[in-house]
Amino acid sequence: MASPDHFVLRSHRLADLTWPEIAGLRQYAPVAIVPLGACEQHGPAMAQRTDTTRAEVVADLVAERLNPRVVVAPVIPVGVSEHHMAFPGTLTLSPVTLQQMVYELVTSLHRHGWRKVFVLTGHGGNNAAVEVAVSRLRGDLPALHIAWSGITPVVSDVASELALSEIRGHSCEIETSQAIFVDPELVLEERLARGSSTVDDLDPAGRLSRSQPGIHFPQGYDALSATGNLGDARAAGKEAGARLITTAVERIAGFLRELLDLPDRKPAIGVEKP
Amino acid sequence: MASPDHFVLRSHRLADLTWPEIAGLRQYAPVAIVPLGACEQHGPAMAQRTDTTRAEVVADLVAERLNPRVVVAPVIPVGVSEHHMAFPGTLTLSPVTLQQMVYELVTSLHRHGWRKVFVLTGHGGNNAAVEVAVSRLRGDLPALHIAWSGITPVVSDVASELALSEIRGHSCEIETSQAIFVDPELVLEERLARGSSTVDDLDPAGRLSRSQPGIHFPQGYDALSATGNLGDARAAGKEAGARLITTAVERIAGFLRELLDLPDRKPAIGVEKP
Amino acid sequence: MASPDHFVLRSHRLADLTWPEIAGLRQYAPVAIVPLGACEQHGPAMAQRTDTTRAEVVADLVAERLNPRVVVAPVIPVGVSEHHMAFPGTLTLSPVTLQQMVYELVTSLHRHGWRKVFVLTGHGGNNAAVEVAVSRLRGDLPALHIAWSGITPVVSDVASELALSEIRGHSCEIETSQAIFVDPELVLEERLARGSSTVDDLDPAGRLSRSQPGIHFPQGYDALSATGNLGDARAAGKEAGARLITTAVERIAGFLRELLDLPDRKPAIGVEKP
Amino acid sequence: MASPDHFVLRSHRLADLTWPEIAGLRQYAPVAIVPLGACEQHGPAMAQRTDTTRAEVVADLVAERLNPRVVVAPVIPVGVSEHHMAFPGTLTLSPVTLQQMVYELVTSLHRHGWRKVFVLTGHGGNNAAVEVAVSRLRGDLPALHIAWSGITPVVSDVASELALSEIRGHSCEIETSQAIFVDPELVLEERLARGSSTVDDLDPAGRLSRSQPGIHFPQGYDALSATGNLGDARAAGKEAGARLITTAVERIAGFLRELLDLPDRKPAIGVEKP
Amino acid sequence: MASPDHFVLRSHRLADLTWPEIAGLRQYAPVAIVPLGACEQHGPAMAQRTDTTRAEVVADLVAERLNPRVVVAPVIPVGVSEHHMAFPGTLTLSPVTLQQMVYELVTSLHRHGWRKVFVLTGHGGNNAAVEVAVSRLRGDLPALHIAWSGITPVVSDVASELALSEIRGHSCEIETSQAIFVDPELVLEERLARGSSTVDDLDPAGRLSRSQPGIHFPQGYDALSATGNLGDARAAGKEAGARLITTAVERIAGFLRELLDLPDRKPAIGVEKP
Amino acid sequence: MASPDHFVLRSHRLADLTWPEIAGLRQYAPVAIVPLGACEQHGPAMAQRTDTTRAEVVADLVAERLNPRVVVAPVIPVGVSEHHMAFPGTLTLSPVTLQQMVYELVTSLHRHGWRKVFVLTGHGGNNAAVEVAVSRLRGDLPALHIAWSGITPVVSDVASELALSEIRGHSCEIETSQAIFVDPELVLEERLARGSSTVDDLDPAGRLSRSQPGIHFPQGYDALSATGNLGDARAAGKEAGARLITTAVERIAGFLRELLDLPDRKPAIGVEKP
Repeated sequence: MASPDHFVLRSHRLADLTWPEIAGLRQYAPVAIVPLGACEQHGPAMAQRTDTTRAEVVADLVAERLNPRVVVAPVIPVGVSEHHMAFPGTLTLSPVTLQQMVYELVTSLHRHGWRKVFVLTGHGGNNAAVEVAVSRLRGDLPALHIAWSGITPVVSDVASELALSEIRGHSCEIETSQAIFVDPELVLEERLARGSSTVDDLDPAGRLSRSQPGIHFPQGYDALSATGNLGDARAAGKEAGARLITTAVERIAGFLRELLDLPDRKPAIGVEKP
Repeated sequence: MASPDHFVLRSHRLADLTWPEIAGLRQYAPVAIVPLGACEQHGPAMAQRTDTTRAEVVADLVAERLNPRVVVAPVIPVGVSEHHMAFPGTLTLSPVTLQQMVYELVTSLHRHGWRKVFVLTGHGGNNAAVEVAVSRLRGDLPALHIAWSGITPVVSDVASELALSEIRGHSCEIETSQAIFVDPELVLEERLARGSSTVDDLDPAGRLSRSQPGIHFPQGYDALSATGNLGDARAAGKEAGARLITTAVERIAGFLRELLDLPDRKPAIGVEKP
Repeated sequence: MASPDHFVLRSHRLADLTWPEIAGLRQYAPVAIVPLGACEQHGPAMAQRTDTTRAEVVADLVAERLNPRVVVAPVIPVGVSEHHMAFPGTLTLSPVTLQQMVYELVTSLHRHGWRKVFVLTGHGGNNAAVEVAVSRLRGDLPALHIAWSGITPVVSDVASELALSEIRGHSCEIETSQAIFVDPELVLEERLARGSSTVDDLDPAGRLSRSQPGIHFPQGYDALSATGNLGDARAAGKEAGARLITTAVERIAGFLRELLDLPDRKPAIGVEKP
Repeated sequence: MASPDHFVLRSHRLADLTWPEIAGLRQYAPVAIVPLGACEQHGPAMAQRTDTTRAEVVADLVAERLNPRVVVAPVIPVGVSEHHMAFPGTLTLSPVTLQQMVYELVTSLHRHGWRKVFVLTGHGGNNAAVEVAVSRLRGDLPALHIAWSGITPVVSDVASELALSEIRGHSCEIETSQAIFVDPELVLEERLARGSSTVDDLDPAGRLSRSQPGIHFPQGYDALSATGNLGDARAAGKEAGARLITTAVERIAGFLRELLDLPDRKPAIGVEKP
Repeated sequence: MASPDHFVLRSHRLADLTWPEIAGLRQYAPVAIVPLGACEQHGPAMAQRTDTTRAEVVADLVAERLNPRVVVAPVIPVGVSEHHMAFPGTLTLSPVTLQQMVYELVTSLHRHGWRKVFVLTGHGGNNAAVEVAVSRLRGDLPALHIAWSGITPVVSDVASELALSEIRGHSCEIETSQAIFVDPELVLEERLARGSSTVDDLDPAGRLSRSQPGIHFPQGYDALSATGNLGDARAAGKEAGARLITTAVERIAGFLRELLDLPDRKPAIGVEKP
Repeated sequence: MASPDHFVLRSHRLADLTWPEIAGLRQYAPVAIVPLGACEQHGPAMAQRTDTTRAEVVADLVAERLNPRVVVAPVIPVGVSEHHMAFPGTLTLSPVTLQQMVYELVTSLHRHGWRKVFVLTGHGGNNAAVEVAVSRLRGDLPALHIAWSGITPVVSDVASELALSEIRGHSCEIETSQAIFVDPELVLEERLARGSSTVDDLDPAGRLSRSQPGIHFPQGYDALSATGNLGDARAAGKEAGARLITTAVERIAGFLRELLDLPDRKPAIGVEKP
């Protein structure tokens, strides 16, 4: 890798740059992050763009920490949110469409020479689509190192420590804390509400869906919670959010530092593809 | 339509709102705009997000002018840009993927009750995909009024008046003027350059592609212009941009005012669908 | 290009020839035209095959004028006509299917060595599908020069001069004149009728769809016109048709003459595709 | 069914008619034929459109015999011909595209009220795509009676009686006879040639492909025959063609007469579809 | 081909083996069979897995006869059975899905070096999907020899000799005999019943569907037979089954012996693919 | 639910039954399990069908425990195994194909009246495809309760307790123990081998892929392990397998017992779908 010591990057966001700037930075910035969000209900007090903004901010913070070695693609502001469609305003893509979109964005980056790509989704509903896209990309682009993560799953230990509610997840105190930290405008603090935060708050199907680790029984959020959120968002705070986000940024940056050091990926020996 | 006289909208952007706010505003805001952008080279001086920002700002200005009767979906920051892929940094979706994405976004809005949707693309490369999506949406959603436009094509008369170059289009003085007006950070003014601005600047295929109105002979931008832009971006100015954007906003708002007054669409009589 | 001086072509239609004849002509006939039609209502007096026949005849006339340098693929007799489905008899393909069909026909020609292909659609409803197909073909076949057009759009200046109606387009006097010229059997002259030919003939949505250049608000033809046609077909005449068609043929032939002189297309430098 | 006694049909071809004519005839003409062809090599002496023309003529003759009870959709002039692509000039669709096209054409007819549709393919290479389309149409349109056939397979007994060659099939004396009868311009009689007409003419894979009834081992025609045809086209004659075509027309018309008498199809009881 | 004289195969089923065993056997076993079944009603007395088991047993017997030169992929236990869905329990894939599945299984074998593949379907409803898959595979994998068959069609002469019923086919005495022979547990002998076994047993559409060889008029089985079977399953017997199965095995093994002797397939000369 | 007290089920496998038996059992057996497997390398000592057999046996044991309230669809013997393709013999489906297959199998069951379906995958590589299929099924079939799981993830606590290796997963002692228990023929005990079982056994990319919980960095198994397995299969035993499988069966049966008691699913209120 070229030494980036004297290279100054006007912005790590690809969308902010001109093409001659990008031509100049490619040798110094071998990692590209593709952030994914959603436009979906986040309970009575959080903006629909919460996942989008969280993904974008985490990507920015990681890029700053590794400056100038990382560039960031524009965040996709909609995701797979069928399970929230009973609430007014949620927009959803089919998983197949999101998967194809991720495939094409990463392929574009690959055509310009990037060989180390990280997909960062702020929304767990995107996971299966991302996993399929990553699997196809690995198969079709044998020189590409590709990794992906969410945000909260990278700090699940911290989240467990900070959370108060028996039931948590979508728009709970953990996610709300992150939102307050990354962009206070995401949250109408006076409207923060307790959602379904104990097993007893759930209907029978909801309770069953939480009964056995390893068994997946997805429920629409209208069935899980009248307010659209889980946990108790009133327990959220900026300090907790700072700790969650900062830890996630550190861990992802740590991973990327090692990825930067990896040699290029080599295709498997002896595998013929048609 | 409900009278919106006393209704106050915290934001017209769906992504900024909470679901209870959206539940409350639907009766006052019967029109939704879906803005589309691109992440593609815009010559040596303009950011890759130029089309995205232009679409977003025009949508915002239209919504402000018709406040509170219009909501705006999150802008999609990538589009169909295969013809720019020879320049480092451009990201592209296939037309089929963008088309499907538009289809799904509009379908989401329709499921929440919107029956008047306007797709606004800041990037001409998206046109065919949008046209196909609109055609499918008209067929599948017989109660939906759906319209679409670009930005510059709505003010082509003004553009003709303001332009200086024989050859113009992508990142010429007309588009650059708009960019300076909507967001000065899009433009590195000192790097503004003349692109291919006369027929003689083009290679033979490029000349042929401009020779006969009505005949389409698409060319990669690497063949059309070494700098990636047409026209002469040095001739751009904020005043011209203001006139172009303001006129486009007025005209689109004028169209939407009449659309707001239209009765609901009725399906064709006597047509059976499987 | 080989000199075609002494080469005699039994027919320029690929479908009329035997394979050894085609083997022999490929060096003399480097351009292939792919004509596209429709099977859709054309008002009370014109046959459903009007667009098909117009495309086929224009392709034939262009090929005759450039004999023996152009071959013509069989005309596809159905197109994208969803907006006419409220009238009995219209057949429609989805845009995705037509797009794929064009892609595969052009790919077949490319496999046999053609590197200069012109898609000629007699039906404007096919445009978006053709544009998408052309974009994909440009990306996937980097040695291919590909161009496309309709018929009337190539002579829009002549049409403006000849037309009488305020509102025109589908099956108006301009299209009917062309039909009378290319094949009188297309037209039942005694049934020619005035369609929606002034803004006042349109319903409110129809009027709105014509109100602002650059804004697209597609309408089903059942909403636009009780008879299925626009303009005033009674004003059509063979002489006008001859002028429209002959001018279109001249212009397309002129374009192809220059295309014949172009060197082979070269792929963009430095672009990697997966 | 309405009595068609005094109804006069200007043409049975849907593409030749105007929409008011089609509106008037639907009650008298409950059967629609969808003919399919191909544009593929037919040996050294037959035009590429041979299958297209045979399908169109047979459809026309059947419609005449049952006049006015049958209408005919425009013939599709390309089909699935990958196995002929080694010969210059053949055009091919993928089976998936043809299948989708047939699906959409029949669906269009169904939307206009036709409930009895017959797909007639002049080209055996289309069979699997047609079979899949028919299966999907039966499932999706439970009121539709749909049947299909080729031409020669309907008269295989007559073909066996008339044929001379040990190996026959594509462009053999049987097909050539049909071509001479339906349109003498299809055939350059002086170039008619013996193709691979005995087992000994085939290469080992070709021989194996003919060795065991019921086992399918498809071969490209370039492997099967240097001339592109099987059998001995020199043995073809108009009289044999007349007998083959006339018998096929009689049998298909006989089938359609009984289909006309069938009551409407009813969906299966107790089957729920999503 | 390597001489397999001293090579001992623990199993010819790929699914039973470990990867080092497969690594070792590939040079001795150049043919792979891909068996396909169905899970569909087989009348009142036969298990839904009848076609699956018949395909698996025939594949096993063929492999035994040619041991160790043939390996067998795992049998796919569902197929295209839409026409049986009116009977409780039938599972169906769409033809497009089965086709894609066969395509991917054969492609997997090809990536591991197999160049001679035989697809064996126990269920006639799979035929069109298999034919399309085989056609695509031939086009995309030019070094692959690929053949396919059903079971009863390979012994149609024997079946004609053994059958008693005027109407036969699905779950008739011929298929039932095979089932008794390959796995007696497939059949509840005391419940064997006469199905629709004469033309008079059929409804008018069913009779029409059997009236003209070469014309296909597919019917749901609920329309064809109240019991779900044709013919007279009471006439089935193990001896007839043995003769049918053994003859089919011999003929397929005979075909594969010759396929083993064929040289590798060569792509057609002069064909360019994109 | 009907009382199943006196109902005797000949088999809980749908494929083993006749349609009249299935007609009779539907009221007693409201749950259907769809088992999914794989045909992929499992290290030097385990058969490629290991995941298929594990899924089938667990499904059978669950059905026995809840007899007669559960039926089992035929196990699909191939899955998504691209990451094992460098080892000879692995077969793989694309995730899109498997997803569609699951969608169609569950839809078939739904058409026959099943409203409670459990997808059980023996292979973790299928997870994303299953998750997407389940999400689509939930959206399209609003009366369907659908849940899914793997096997080992349901007993991850037991696995942690029993495992010895630092690195485990594919074909480690945990999976091998299960295989020995469910079918000893799956395992060649004398060839059991230690795979990559410590972090030091991995290459740098493999180590990185295991370094941060929540970050996914998928690796081909050829890169992870020369033998194709992780952990130390020599430490496997039947007793451990019995405990793992029996616990998984108990937990899944427990989940299904509660699912049986759930009322039917109701679609979300106020959600319109096109």
